[in-house]
Amino acid sequence: MQNHQFRLTSRPAGAVQRSDFSYGSEAVRALVEGEVLVQIKYVSLDPAMRGWMNASENSYMPPVGIGEVMRAIAAGKVIDSRNDGFAVGDHVTGLLGVQEYAISSGQGLFKVDAALAPLPLFLGTLGMTGMTAYFGLLDVGQPKEGDTVVVSGAAGAVGATVGQIAKIKGARVVGIAGGADKCRYLVEELGFDAAIDYKSEDVAAALKQHCPNGVNVFFDNVGGEILDAVLAKLAMGARVVICGAISQYNNLEAAKGPANYLQIMVKRATLRGVMVSDYYPRAKEAITDMAGWIRAGKLKTREDVVAGLESFPETFNKLFDGSNNGKLVLKVA
Amino acid sequence: MQNHQFRLTSRPAGAVQRSDFSYGSEAVRALVEGEVLVQIKYVSLDPAMRGWMNASENSYMPPVGIGEVMRAIAAGKVIDSRNDGFAVGDHVTGLLGVQEYAISSGQGLFKVDAALAPLPLFLGTLGMTGMTAYFGLLDVGQPKEGDTVVVSGAAGAVGATVGQIAKIKGARVVGIAGGADKCRYLVEELGFDAAIDYKSEDVAAALKQHCPNGVNVFFDNVGGEILDAVLAKLAMGARVVICGAISQYNNLEAAKGPANYLQIMVKRATLRGVMVSDYYPRAKEAITDMAGWIRAGKLKTREDVVAGLESFPETFNKLFDGSNNGKLVLKVA
Repeated sequence: MQNHQFRLTSRPAGAVQRSDFSYGSEAVRALVEGEVLVQIKYVSLDPAMRGWMNASENSYMPPVGIGEVMRAIAAGKVIDSRNDGFAVGDHVTGLLGVQEYAISSGQGLFKVDAALAPLPLFLGTLGMTGMTAYFGLLDVGQPKEGDTVVVSGAAGAVGATVGQIAKIKGARVVGIAGGADKCRYLVEELGFDAAIDYKSEDVAAALKQHCPNGVNVFFDNVGGEILDAVLAKLAMGARVVICGAISQYNNLEAAKGPANYLQIMVKRATLRGVMVSDYYPRAKEAITDMAGWIRAGKLKTREDVVAGLESFPETFNKLFDGSNNGKLVLKVA
Repeated sequence: MQNHQFRLTSRPAGAVQRSDFSYGSEAVRALVEGEVLVQIKYVSLDPAMRGWMNASENSYMPPVGIGEVMRAIAAGKVIDSRNDGFAVGDHVTGLLGVQEYAISSGQGLFKVDAALAPLPLFLGTLGMTGMTAYFGLLDVGQPKEGDTVVVSGAAGAVGATVGQIAKIKGARVVGIAGGADKCRYLVEELGFDAAIDYKSEDVAAALKQHCPNGVNVFFDNVGGEILDAVLAKLAMGARVVICGAISQYNNLEAAKGPANYLQIMVKRATLRGVMVSDYYPRAKEAITDMAGWIRAGKLKTREDVVAGLESFPETFNKLFDGSNNGKLVLKVA
């Protein structure tokens, strides 16, 4: 059995290129005691993966080594097992990599109920993406009823979930996204109170218009100029949730820090990050709530499923040019 | 009676210049019911004053208006009163301005016991400066015994107090200051565990050496590159206290934001500011503790008293070139 896979061969400068990877195949080896063989069906493409490709010593995970299979969360089916915890036919998710088959020790491998929802949903709203939104907003952002919540990257997988949960919790929600179609989607389909198109609007002026009482919670996926614009509009006692900085990940120069950070002091605000792995022990709480909201029609999900493992480098770059629509997932043929 | 005073006549670009102010005198008018006349003895010179000179709409106080007396905290003696709360001979502090005499409604005017300590101390360790250090460190920074606390601007009035309180609370304390003399002062006279001279040392390398387990609490008065260097060395769960950004106040371009701010996420850290005015209701708590520590010889204070109101613009700039030693105060002749 041949396993096609992407291995990292050089550290990308800026946007990733096909030449930063090798795409090859090798035979799947036999399992040893305790191992599980997973046939991967879907690979999750997440902005964080760009950071894993860098040689940073200050990240929350070691970088992917040169020559290693590119790290990614994926979902698949157990097709062989020498681990009592997993049976052939089980559906699982975990850090299985950009490849067709993965051998796992079982550690960090989660069983999911494929009868409950389509497999890609366990990479999105019912997976890390949803948990990041859920705990980042509710645990770190702590919106109160009537608060104004602003979310950047609002049409992205995390952002769209954050905004809808904030609505469920009674907040007024303003999304920042790129393009008229995405903004229309946020307001008309997801029920956001307003959307700001950063590609065509003056974000500062639009924030002033849509957030007359300032911003109580800002959930930031983007960083850069958008973070600065929102910092200038914080309400007293605001909570700023740092989830990512997608505008900065492909930067060749040093990332741009938020020049307006002193507003944290002026507005008695708090800036904290969200790391989804800290919330694994509370996963059930999030999944139960979100599955319920999905069933009740209060939480809409959207997956952007692109077929073909071999398109990985080009498909991954859709995250950064804003051309994906919803949770980006690679379907393994 | 003639009152000499500095009025702001233009908004400074970069470091303040004498030509940004008018220095003149006018007759002191008669008091109306409820007012107090204060003869100013000492004017406190604080970095925050630089911000008050800018036309920012996003500050915690409105800017000083063009033509208005320059805002400053000062200490003096009541020499006339039509307010039952204040008697002739009372010593007071408040936002009295860069001038010889001030008329106050009594609001924001605090009586101090001049028998307890010399008047300049009520502008320093027993005033706003000390309270900023006390509440910023203890309430926002929350050092635990054995924590590594780093403070920037460590030889300044706030920084030196922060470091000593952190020592009293059982922390390991590393100060960042400019110049060998200041560093020697921190270690030899104030008992800091280590000091880093940012003018002659590689701050990142020195932090690595002096904070092998990372930085649990960072109290930042400086911003800019020093903030970035410390963010890269945070320990898990660190607290970053933003008190000021003296390296940025005279910037002609936009302030430099902390490029390493994503470390807040990676290290599950919290970034918050300290605004001393929020703690006025708890002033007694700070003053009692600090007066006790001063008496016990655990908390050393140093005032840099410069004589002559008329030297205000040049003396003020000592805050920014690092040539002051301790709490900078102007003595009114």
